[in-house]
Amino acid sequence: MDHPDYDCGVNVAFDVVGTKWKPTILWCLSQGARRFAALRREVGAISEKVLAQQLRELERDGIVTRTVHEGFPLRVEYTLTERGTRLDAALTAVAEWGEQNVDHVVAARASAHA
Amino acid sequence: MDHPDYDCGVNVAFDVVGTKWKPTILWCLSQGARRFAALRREVGAISEKVLAQQLRELERDGIVTRTVHEGFPLRVEYTLTERGTRLDAALTAVAEWGEQNVDHVVAARASAHA
Repeated sequence: MDHPDYDCGVNVAFDVVGTKWKPTILWCLSQGARRFAALRREVGAISEKVLAQQLRELERDGIVTRTVHEGFPLRVEYTLTERGTRLDAALTAVAEWGEQNVDHVVAARASAHA
Repeated sequence: MDHPDYDCGVNVAFDVVGTKWKPTILWCLSQGARRFAALRREVGAISEKVLAQQLRELERDGIVTRTVHEGFPLRVEYTLTERGTRLDAALTAVAEWGEQNVDHVVAARASAHA
């Protein structure tokens, strides 16, 4: 890949989704639109501040859309964009590899540090 | 995914390969066994020290095998393990996503910081 900022397409994807929480956020939104509170419950032990920051970054990168529905009370929903849906799909095989190899990786690291 | 250290398989894979150089190292080794000097030339602007460290980590995690061939001079070769080959394959779709979306991501970040 010939780009001034990146050697490899994988690095681009890692930049966009390579934090502790973003893969889980993508997975939750791949199941459908979510409101902030529901998303926070689903993602798990994430603070409001961190979830808001992760969503802002995903929105900036064109992965998530934030929609405000008029009415009382105001309703704010988050959904995956087309770009985000394709990234989530591309990550499926990576998630499977991770699930199949987590025990090996954790054990290999434990013995390396023993 | 129910694991004390990881919420999602993607995080496991990112832990194993989520550095600037490791995706490119994996790609180079997916093309066949490489000696250190050849790998360093192919990967590009990476220092000897950093490449050696990345290879040690990949070897620890079971992604790369380091083989010493007896003889004079001694020959050391690096190859992908079966586990590494499957990870490299799983990353193909992610690399494609990155190549297709790099311009959008770079532009989105530039305008966000403008």
